[in-house]
Amino acid sequence: MAKRNARISNAVIKRLPRYRRYLYELKKKNVEKISSQGLSELIGYTASQIRQDLNHFGDFGQQGYGYSVDGLYDEIGAILGLDKEYKVVVVGIGHLGKSIARFTYLYKSGFKICGLFDTADDVIGKTVRIPVMDVKRLVDFVEENKVDIGIICVPPEAAQEVCDKLCFAGIKGIWNFAPVDLEAPAKVVVENVHVMESLHTLVYRMNEK
Amino acid sequence: MAKRNARISNAVIKRLPRYRRYLYELKKKNVEKISSQGLSELIGYTASQIRQDLNHFGDFGQQGYGYSVDGLYDEIGAILGLDKEYKVVVVGIGHLGKSIARFTYLYKSGFKICGLFDTADDVIGKTVRIPVMDVKRLVDFVEENKVDIGIICVPPEAAQEVCDKLCFAGIKGIWNFAPVDLEAPAKVVVENVHVMESLHTLVYRMNEK
Repeated sequence: MAKRNARISNAVIKRLPRYRRYLYELKKKNVEKISSQGLSELIGYTASQIRQDLNHFGDFGQQGYGYSVDGLYDEIGAILGLDKEYKVVVVGIGHLGKSIARFTYLYKSGFKICGLFDTADDVIGKTVRIPVMDVKRLVDFVEENKVDIGIICVPPEAAQEVCDKLCFAGIKGIWNFAPVDLEAPAKVVVENVHVMESLHTLVYRMNEK
Repeated sequence: MAKRNARISNAVIKRLPRYRRYLYELKKKNVEKISSQGLSELIGYTASQIRQDLNHFGDFGQQGYGYSVDGLYDEIGAILGLDKEYKVVVVGIGHLGKSIARFTYLYKSGFKICGLFDTADDVIGKTVRIPVMDVKRLVDFVEENKVDIGIICVPPEAAQEVCDKLCFAGIKGIWNFAPVDLEAPAKVVVENVHVMESLHTLVYRMNEK
């Protein structure tokens, strides 16, 4: 199904993975159809918001019938681009980089980690599913293998340099776990996971109570 | 400095850790003062937004002088509650739980991980900085040690049960890495880190370009 409208707000986009997660749970329970009201009770958004969100992408539901769980799950996956495979490299194989390299769910859901990179002599050559390479090989590797996504797990002071290398090599997206804001050309999408900011928000809200 | 206004919007709160992160970078470079304009160039918010945000918490700056970097860093830390120590347990010592248990920065910034818990016989008793305990001891441990924060790193299907135990034992905050939305009593603050949703957003934006 083609997108009805290419300019969909970030807020809607941010909600789609959440819809998909709930639909996945329903699939696992062999639920075949669900109304917007049923989705509303599960997810906590209003039924009208749900209908509005999903209408951006075409008519998934049928009046008085509800949404097909399988169909909606697949459509949202296709809209998000999760029906394709992506080649991924991880840069910085410390504790976090290792845990990402071993995160089975990534492989299962189409994110193929094909390269791991580090600068430390005692890490290069070790195997975390696949061997860790010297970061000096990063640019050539990304170019040659047409890698789509680079995951940055290096310390903050090294993150911009890694970002520059990935962009130079033609990466399309960067998933950044370093606690810095990166500068990248407009054609490269950067998505940050700033976990400490999330923890600090938690602490603030705990103290507020 | 006392809070001027207890009802500060979530949007402002979410920006504070980010201010603090930039102030930390300035501190490391021995910068002593900075204007709202200077902060604006660094962070990317407008100077007027910055002044408005910081005014929620009191007058940090002086006209024509700017903000004291050290002072503002400490004040934002105090507002967020980062001038205190927090006792933390991690439940689920898989790859992610391990990488959190080993995350030195947490210890340095006042988050004292005092308990690790798992259900698997081959994990219980192992040492990841400290020994991993049987999750059966979780409730007693949290009660006896007056633990503040529970970090949930278990698979999605086990997350609600862990959440229930933590809440029963009197936890104040839950930092949830499991890809589910948890139900908790209103007095317990839950902050989610849904990393896969972040990756899915990245992929969507890559495909949009």
